Amino acid sequence: MTAEFAKAGAEDFTLPGRPLPFFLPAGEGERAHLFDSLVTVLLSKDETEGQFGVFTLAAPRGEAIPTHTHADVHEIFFVLGGRARVWIQDAEGERLERLLGPGDFGYVPAGLPHSFRVEADDTRILGVCTGGFERFFAAAGTRTDSRGLPRPPHVPSAEHLAAAGREFGNEFRFDLRLDG
Amino acid sequence: MTAEFAKAGAEDFTLPGRPLPFFLPAGEGERAHLFDSLVTVLLSKDETEGQFGVFTLAAPRGEAIPTHTHADVHEIFFVLGGRARVWIQDAEGERLERLLGPGDFGYVPAGLPHSFRVEADDTRILGVCTGGFERFFAAAGTRTDSRGLPRPPHVPSAEHLAAAGREFGNEFRFDLRLDG
Repeated sequence: MTAEFAKAGAEDFTLPGRPLPFFLPAGEGERAHLFDSLVTVLLSKDETEGQFGVFTLAAPRGEAIPTHTHADVHEIFFVLGGRARVWIQDAEGERLERLLGPGDFGYVPAGLPHSFRVEADDTRILGVCTGGFERFFAAAGTRTDSRGLPRPPHVPSAEHLAAAGREFGNEFRFDLRLDG
Repeated sequence: MTAEFAKAGAEDFTLPGRPLPFFLPAGEGERAHLFDSLVTVLLSKDETEGQFGVFTLAAPRGEAIPTHTHADVHEIFFVLGGRARVWIQDAEGERLERLLGPGDFGYVPAGLPHSFRVEADDTRILGVCTGGFERFFAAAGTRTDSRGLPRPPHVPSAEHLAAAGREFGNEFRFDLRLDG
């Protein structure tokens, strides 16, 4: 038995669902559009016994995403290409800010408010998160066959976004602007 | 309080040791030399409540590393640059093989024998693993200030390698050649 997926990339493509070995060529995975981003899930909690998920996020230069927290989800940013500015509010309420370029890394432990702003077109970021959160993006947005950015952006309704937030433990802090 | 580390990269540099926010510029982290590779740990179990660790591996074109298994450690390969051929023996004893280039991904769930061979100079791979395994490379090899590849390669004694293997649950399968 091999781990080939003939339809890798289609809207109905799903990862193996349990700890099986597999490969994905660049660009393949569970793709979704959310706002101006293409998010591709490469690995989920189902393959890692809940430990971690892995995804890539591709986005054009844009505005800062709304500040948010996820109480039980740790998350990394590893910049593959382009530039993204990351803000994190630490446990003492101090604001950390860093412009990340290729090869730079940022870590947001669970519970800390954070945001980021993509500052160059063709920016790509690799994310790793506590298992389960990787599918937030598809829940908040929409699964897609497309390998490109959403044009126009895919803007969910407030209700849809809130429901996805509740399901995945993502709390938006619309009251807290970190990019000011 | 910020998360700056003035001596980031020195042999005695260590990650925060608990879930704190921080940034690392490209190339910084806990660096080690093992055989012909430079391994840089960006995140460890100590920052992620044991969930996962993150590291980069840089290596020149070379021979396949010895086949090995880690019974309780899941591991990904995400190629940042260059090329690496990955072999995995699945639960049915079938051999999966793939040449991975930039942006390609491979997943090795816990317990499966695997190996890889770097097939281009300047290859860089990002790894994510079940929390704890990220420090195997420094234990088997040696911490370093260097930002380059080990020249000559850092070859541990058999005893040192075996001790690190025992400590981190890494079992070498010198009897099983997957690259043949």
